Amino acid sequence: MNQTQVQKLLRQFKRGSIPAAEVLARLQGTETEDIHFAQIDHGRIRRQGFPEVVLCEGKTPAQTAAIAERIAHKGSLLLATRAGRDHYRAVKRKVRDARYNAVARTITANEQLVRRRGRGTILIVSTGTSDLPVAEEAFETAQVMGNLVEQLHDVGVAGIHRLLAATPRLRKASVIIVVAGMEGALPSVVGGLVDVPVIAVPTSIGYGASFQGVSALLGMLNSCAPGVVVVNIDNGFGAGFAASRINRRRSGA
Amino acid sequence: MNQTQVQKLLRQFKRGSIPAAEVLARLQGTETEDIHFAQIDHGRIRRQGFPEVVLCEGKTPAQTAAIAERIAHKGSLLLATRAGRDHYRAVKRKVRDARYNAVARTITANEQLVRRRGRGTILIVSTGTSDLPVAEEAFETAQVMGNLVEQLHDVGVAGIHRLLAATPRLRKASVIIVVAGMEGALPSVVGGLVDVPVIAVPTSIGYGASFQGVSALLGMLNSCAPGVVVVNIDNGFGAGFAASRINRRRSGA
Amino acid sequence: MNQTQVQKLLRQFKRGSIPAAEVLARLQGTETEDIHFAQIDHGRIRRQGFPEVVLCEGKTPAQTAAIAERIAHKGSLLLATRAGRDHYRAVKRKVRDARYNAVARTITANEQLVRRRGRGTILIVSTGTSDLPVAEEAFETAQVMGNLVEQLHDVGVAGIHRLLAATPRLRKASVIIVVAGMEGALPSVVGGLVDVPVIAVPTSIGYGASFQGVSALLGMLNSCAPGVVVVNIDNGFGAGFAASRINRRRSGA
Amino acid sequence: MNQTQVQKLLRQFKRGSIPAAEVLARLQGTETEDIHFAQIDHGRIRRQGFPEVVLCEGKTPAQTAAIAERIAHKGSLLLATRAGRDHYRAVKRKVRDARYNAVARTITANEQLVRRRGRGTILIVSTGTSDLPVAEEAFETAQVMGNLVEQLHDVGVAGIHRLLAATPRLRKASVIIVVAGMEGALPSVVGGLVDVPVIAVPTSIGYGASFQGVSALLGMLNSCAPGVVVVNIDNGFGAGFAASRINRRRSGA
Amino acid sequence: MNQTQVQKLLRQFKRGSIPAAEVLARLQGTETEDIHFAQIDHGRIRRQGFPEVVLCEGKTPAQTAAIAERIAHKGSLLLATRAGRDHYRAVKRKVRDARYNAVARTITANEQLVRRRGRGTILIVSTGTSDLPVAEEAFETAQVMGNLVEQLHDVGVAGIHRLLAATPRLRKASVIIVVAGMEGALPSVVGGLVDVPVIAVPTSIGYGASFQGVSALLGMLNSCAPGVVVVNIDNGFGAGFAASRINRRRSGA
Amino acid sequence: MNQTQVQKLLRQFKRGSIPAAEVLARLQGTETEDIHFAQIDHGRIRRQGFPEVVLCEGKTPAQTAAIAERIAHKGSLLLATRAGRDHYRAVKRKVRDARYNAVARTITANEQLVRRRGRGTILIVSTGTSDLPVAEEAFETAQVMGNLVEQLHDVGVAGIHRLLAATPRLRKASVIIVVAGMEGALPSVVGGLVDVPVIAVPTSIGYGASFQGVSALLGMLNSCAPGVVVVNIDNGFGAGFAASRINRRRSGA
Amino acid sequence: MNQTQVQKLLRQFKRGSIPAAEVLARLQGTETEDIHFAQIDHGRIRRQGFPEVVLCEGKTPAQTAAIAERIAHKGSLLLATRAGRDHYRAVKRKVRDARYNAVARTITANEQLVRRRGRGTILIVSTGTSDLPVAEEAFETAQVMGNLVEQLHDVGVAGIHRLLAATPRLRKASVIIVVAGMEGALPSVVGGLVDVPVIAVPTSIGYGASFQGVSALLGMLNSCAPGVVVVNIDNGFGAGFAASRINRRRSGA
Amino acid sequence: MNQTQVQKLLRQFKRGSIPAAEVLARLQGTETEDIHFAQIDHGRIRRQGFPEVVLCEGKTPAQTAAIAERIAHKGSLLLATRAGRDHYRAVKRKVRDARYNAVARTITANEQLVRRRGRGTILIVSTGTSDLPVAEEAFETAQVMGNLVEQLHDVGVAGIHRLLAATPRLRKASVIIVVAGMEGALPSVVGGLVDVPVIAVPTSIGYGASFQGVSALLGMLNSCAPGVVVVNIDNGFGAGFAASRINRRRSGA
Repeated sequence: MNQTQVQKLLRQFKRGSIPAAEVLARLQGTETEDIHFAQIDHGRIRRQGFPEVVLCEGKTPAQTAAIAERIAHKGSLLLATRAGRDHYRAVKRKVRDARYNAVARTITANEQLVRRRGRGTILIVSTGTSDLPVAEEAFETAQVMGNLVEQLHDVGVAGIHRLLAATPRLRKASVIIVVAGMEGALPSVVGGLVDVPVIAVPTSIGYGASFQGVSALLGMLNSCAPGVVVVNIDNGFGAGFAASRINRRRSGA
Repeated sequence: MNQTQVQKLLRQFKRGSIPAAEVLARLQGTETEDIHFAQIDHGRIRRQGFPEVVLCEGKTPAQTAAIAERIAHKGSLLLATRAGRDHYRAVKRKVRDARYNAVARTITANEQLVRRRGRGTILIVSTGTSDLPVAEEAFETAQVMGNLVEQLHDVGVAGIHRLLAATPRLRKASVIIVVAGMEGALPSVVGGLVDVPVIAVPTSIGYGASFQGVSALLGMLNSCAPGVVVVNIDNGFGAGFAASRINRRRSGA
Repeated sequence: MNQTQVQKLLRQFKRGSIPAAEVLARLQGTETEDIHFAQIDHGRIRRQGFPEVVLCEGKTPAQTAAIAERIAHKGSLLLATRAGRDHYRAVKRKVRDARYNAVARTITANEQLVRRRGRGTILIVSTGTSDLPVAEEAFETAQVMGNLVEQLHDVGVAGIHRLLAATPRLRKASVIIVVAGMEGALPSVVGGLVDVPVIAVPTSIGYGASFQGVSALLGMLNSCAPGVVVVNIDNGFGAGFAASRINRRRSGA
Repeated sequence: MNQTQVQKLLRQFKRGSIPAAEVLARLQGTETEDIHFAQIDHGRIRRQGFPEVVLCEGKTPAQTAAIAERIAHKGSLLLATRAGRDHYRAVKRKVRDARYNAVARTITANEQLVRRRGRGTILIVSTGTSDLPVAEEAFETAQVMGNLVEQLHDVGVAGIHRLLAATPRLRKASVIIVVAGMEGALPSVVGGLVDVPVIAVPTSIGYGASFQGVSALLGMLNSCAPGVVVVNIDNGFGAGFAASRINRRRSGA
Repeated sequence: MNQTQVQKLLRQFKRGSIPAAEVLARLQGTETEDIHFAQIDHGRIRRQGFPEVVLCEGKTPAQTAAIAERIAHKGSLLLATRAGRDHYRAVKRKVRDARYNAVARTITANEQLVRRRGRGTILIVSTGTSDLPVAEEAFETAQVMGNLVEQLHDVGVAGIHRLLAATPRLRKASVIIVVAGMEGALPSVVGGLVDVPVIAVPTSIGYGASFQGVSALLGMLNSCAPGVVVVNIDNGFGAGFAASRINRRRSGA
Repeated sequence: MNQTQVQKLLRQFKRGSIPAAEVLARLQGTETEDIHFAQIDHGRIRRQGFPEVVLCEGKTPAQTAAIAERIAHKGSLLLATRAGRDHYRAVKRKVRDARYNAVARTITANEQLVRRRGRGTILIVSTGTSDLPVAEEAFETAQVMGNLVEQLHDVGVAGIHRLLAATPRLRKASVIIVVAGMEGALPSVVGGLVDVPVIAVPTSIGYGASFQGVSALLGMLNSCAPGVVVVNIDNGFGAGFAASRINRRRSGA
Repeated sequence: MNQTQVQKLLRQFKRGSIPAAEVLARLQGTETEDIHFAQIDHGRIRRQGFPEVVLCEGKTPAQTAAIAERIAHKGSLLLATRAGRDHYRAVKRKVRDARYNAVARTITANEQLVRRRGRGTILIVSTGTSDLPVAEEAFETAQVMGNLVEQLHDVGVAGIHRLLAATPRLRKASVIIVVAGMEGALPSVVGGLVDVPVIAVPTSIGYGASFQGVSALLGMLNSCAPGVVVVNIDNGFGAGFAASRINRRRSGA
Repeated sequence: MNQTQVQKLLRQFKRGSIPAAEVLARLQGTETEDIHFAQIDHGRIRRQGFPEVVLCEGKTPAQTAAIAERIAHKGSLLLATRAGRDHYRAVKRKVRDARYNAVARTITANEQLVRRRGRGTILIVSTGTSDLPVAEEAFETAQVMGNLVEQLHDVGVAGIHRLLAATPRLRKASVIIVVAGMEGALPSVVGGLVDVPVIAVPTSIGYGASFQGVSALLGMLNSCAPGVVVVNIDNGFGAGFAASRINRRRSGA
């Protein structure tokens, strides 16, 4: 929308012939790209500090590739999550420098655009080998958003000394992401050892009464350690994203 | 049942030799066609305003085709939902003009019988690409029932301006169907912007604590916007059907 | 906000010194009245066709009365739901013509403003004596919104002939609200008898495995009768509101 | 255990050297056949009126065949439920006259032993084509237990006249089994039309909030028609078995 | 409806000016008494073999008394369940011979009309003292419906010999109602000892993970003893009613 | 049952005129005392090693007192749990030396009969002050059953050093009961520090998504520390009872 | 523990006569104060940056007062949550400057110790008047922990312009707490408008299928806006605590 | 860590330059082996009496083999559970004497290290053939931990005499593991017959309302037989491990 169009629109508004909602709608509509089955929200980087992230689950490879292409060719950083090999192959054909992390199931591109924006280190702690995919998703997310990220694996509460041995590393982090399945007890212990924000990610690891992560989720929501916040089951991306917002350098800070 | 039979029946009734229930049963039985595993309800068009719709899920392709054939050959509009390719192939062999929408998973036939019966436009709004199959099912249903139908995709609440930009379209519709997965928040926002009926359709899109659509369903049932009504998870057909009833021109209206 | 202020605002916007969101916010802010613990949305009548309705549950009588007073004195129709006697007494002191329906638990005022806006009759059908409060809430809501409303009680499915006896009344309605607890089966039967929209309201009536209305809610969501839409448990207000939108006369209809 | 052994045992008991529980255990142990992974309960026909029935689900074809062989060769009627084709093939190799009902997923043998033991007719009523497998399982069970069994399909409540048309058949039955998925409303309507026992069988047919039959189960448990009793989801066998016990001729009756 | 009215009605039907549904409705309507908040179903005794039973829960004492009065004065047996003392007092003022069982929470009247209609004895078995109210409700129901009823209390499975000691009594019954809370295991054991129908009633007795009877309900639905049927939690009335239907003498039996 | 009766009974059995089950039943029946609403199981001490324990919840004070009197006067140790003050007062009138622990809500009597039967010390560990009632119930139970019992309170995982400081005490115990609400994480940590059996007791302490102890229960069932076993929510009695069985000196050990 | 004791301890450790765990335990034990039913964790301020907070729910007033007194007299800031008037009165008798916020249900003392430690402003946004208690709890918590805190009430999504009007305030905050009941949709919309961390607090406000906050909780966990983190239902304290950690000035930042 | 390093560390600690937590961490860290995706806890045998057990589910065959190799080559007993054939093959390549139990799905190695450590016999009782895999997992676990283990299969409660016949075997065991699916009633009956600890293992065997073992789990948690403790659904390993701890010979016992 060029200047003339904007002026015309606002004049209409002042005359009362169009309502305010429509003014806003048309003004902001220019940042959205409509490709029929999706409206790509190019304004997200301005509003939320990062371009739209593509959730591949539920999308066909072709749909994923079409959206990824628009984002990447617009010159934005690309992050796609829960991507299968099929999604990756389809994207790779459109976006040459796409990179696939098969454990994290993420696709990234235009990574040369990554800029260090975090204040400190984000530490990702997990309880066992089976939680790796979720931890890796958090890792990729936080890294592509410009953070220093470290990982600490297999420090479940049944062998508490492994965690205690890592207390110095826990204390040095500026945000901690704790990934845990089964009873989801680790965030409570970590939350009691540090004074930084702790983001708990329940995983669907477990069986029987773990109910695909519900048990871990409830454990984390009921944590007796104050200051523990929680994201959805297996949502490594959400944890990495939130950690990144928390860790971010702000001019006024 | 011919006139003589009816008279005989009613005479028996008046004598008290058969109860009223049986009178009704026999009188109405004539509209039902029994093909052993199904009793096709040809009277439904009279009672409910549309012929029986075939739910393919749980039926074999052969059963589906047998039922579809009876409906189509009786000269009624055919609509079959949740149809796989196998169902379609079996139907196609019996019903020549059958059409398959692979996204919506619907089979339709005798579409030349579709008559414009709606007063205004039904608008289908969805939150993301993954919700397309449900939106398409609603679309096919509403269209075959004689309505003008429009669609608006990928206007999730995390980028609220995309929805606001469409406010004029929302305001022009006479009924709005909102299809949403995950937290199912879109119907609340739409419900607050318009004064027409809003039908919310939760979808099973999401993961973890979305519980295959339960999260979206609960969100919609608890909508703080009054006037939002809800159908079953992934029930695009039900939403399209209800919207059609609401939108219908009535002689006395 | 007067004309001068608006012009100043838009000039700022054109210069780019304030974002569009803020323009809209300030322009629309004028319809909202802030009384610290609540922002009364006086623009709702314009957007949604009816003034803000007050949900008393969770509000103190004093808070309720303060909000009710603002709405009533602004010259709008007042509807407050889930009101206890305490809420009513507090409102009555501020709003002289307030009326209380103790069964429906509603408070209404400025009822002289009610205008006939519905096209046909809204029929409220319920399964038993215990469902009366929910049916009455729907009744008060639909009536205050300008509709002809009728009621039909105690026609549960275990004595199906009582419902069948009322078929002519069912057929004459333009929208039907079905209120049912326990197994919630009534909407399915009604939905199969008519060709108008059916809004199902599950009630918390029942015991044991009725789970305070969950059983009825699930029954209604899974109705085998197409076109049945559902609202929250015990939400007579929501059903009355939705029925009212459906029944409403529209210029272009 | 021969007479001498019994006498010795009882003598030991009288002396107090073994407890009563052991007496019983040894006395009854003779009716059980131990094949390591199973103890076949040949006394069941005496205690419960029918030989042990084999639930194939969770058993390997080889295990199933070994158990079936013992039962059949002992000269008892064989009924095996939830049998896949693999189970059938394995059984067929051991039990020559085994018969498979692929819809019901039952295996039967020694059917020449079936004796008419029922007083009246057991009527199986179902709501739709998809419920057939469960209805058939009930049918096979009730038949092999010596009953006259009839079926009535596709009489769901959304087309209530189909059921009403069958009222005379409902009234003639001595027990009615109602098989229904989705909202499970049919038993309530049937229960209100007859004065005989009604056994409701919820099926896992449906989608979304049907939760694999939970919705139908809850509907049936909360039936407003008194006298409706319920069995587990998809448990056609249990319904047929219970109906058979109810229908059974008893000397003293 | 007198003879003339019936003839007029049927004439209209034959001319086609009214549909069959309406014919039935009007013919059957004569057995229903409308007292605004309830439609008393006087035809129930004909259809279901027993007059309408009043569920007091959710009804005010005044409503209960009004309904009870109509039933009792019509000369029918009165049974009201889940009645508090307040309900009883209100009923007693209208129905002189009303009797209250404070444990069962039932009100009965016109008991001189009770006729022996059962073939054998109904035995009610319960696991503990806390289950008495539910057992008593079943007892009152079965008795007022014309059955010989016996009770056997406190035979929980943790002391299995108490049950085994009663085997002869179990074997003599023609129907057994098993009332159990907590894990609800008793019906499985009873079901394995007898060859008559077993109706299981879960009670809300227990704490923690008993979830107000859900644990017992699930245990009973999953009973490994075939032929066990289940009613709603705490539904002693339903069990007594079903047992009565099963036990009933039938001309053709 | 005297010697003569026993001989007669066994003779009948040998002749085949009564079945084995009945023999057992009558023989064992002599240890049961029938007081109409309860059958007191005096043989439990022989079978299970401890007299019947009275669960007061769901029993009236009068019923509780009647049962308690029978047990105490028979010369057995009395333990009654979940007793309110009313239960205690009623018992006290019948059993002079009854003692009430108002925190544990237990009544005990005949405590002079307590004999040291445990091998080592049972340690009860709890997470916070609110868990005291459950811990105390476990304490009273284990003590009355003849064990040395110690307690360690308020060692929740958010301050893990409090637990670690008690490691020597944990290591000295022969069985550990861990009482915890909220996320129920403590048993996992304890289970990882010791090599003795750990019994986890979830409590209903918490709010929101603790769901009255469900969250703690699930956490404990999914414990990543092997060897943790679980009892029902708030079931301090069950934990004390099980710990006592584990700790018990056995002749052959 | 004095110097000599420490040296002795470490010497024992070096000799291998005590394990490392015990060393730590004893060294750290000195910061814990044992008052039988509680072990007050005075070291928490060092480890977690704030003294132990007292959760009054489940504690008697006397227990609460005893703990509060120890904390306050040790010269630490006191914060007690979920405090009833009884708790407050008991505390007030021991701690003279205790202050009660009856809406937030918090008790605070030694507030002169509060030091500004936050970098920016924490903004608490809520959807309606009924959510005030939870919002106030978050407010008190964040304030006593040294933050500038602002509030914005009644900006639910059904009147989205109220929220949009506040966009500038949202953008100025450094952390946002969103308190919402019913469908819990507000955090998704807020999360899409800003680039700072958003902490969502579900409240138990709502009825029927809101399931005491479960619906809002699920909505928030499934938020389509990335970066939203969640705490337990009604956990205003947890949100305020986490926000405080996020907002905190750190030397190295 | 050699002596010099330890001395240096403790000196630093005494000077106060490092906190106690760090001392412990470094001291204990030496028993942990870090292979990036896992930290093998070689100290577990010392703390918990048995080496770390590998849960294969969720781990790739390669990861499993790497961990198994470290444990086996360190000279420890290897136990891996929930192992598929792929896991076994990968392990076998690294650990020559690995043995696979295909029913139990366990891998074991270094079994020559098994030492008899149990006091008595552990008896595993199961309800049916389908529960064998869980029973076998418990068997392998208890055996590799040095116990005499026996099994008793197919003694479900519907044929209670099979269990009673085994009473002598039940009485001779020192710990009993009861494995049961469906309604999970067996532990209650067993618990009432013996005076030794009973560990109940719910299995996911069943269908419909068994909810993959939830029904059995709830039944066991609500057992009316005191002293029954429960582990997670299908957790044969946990039961075997706990039984082993209970059965273990202790020097001081």
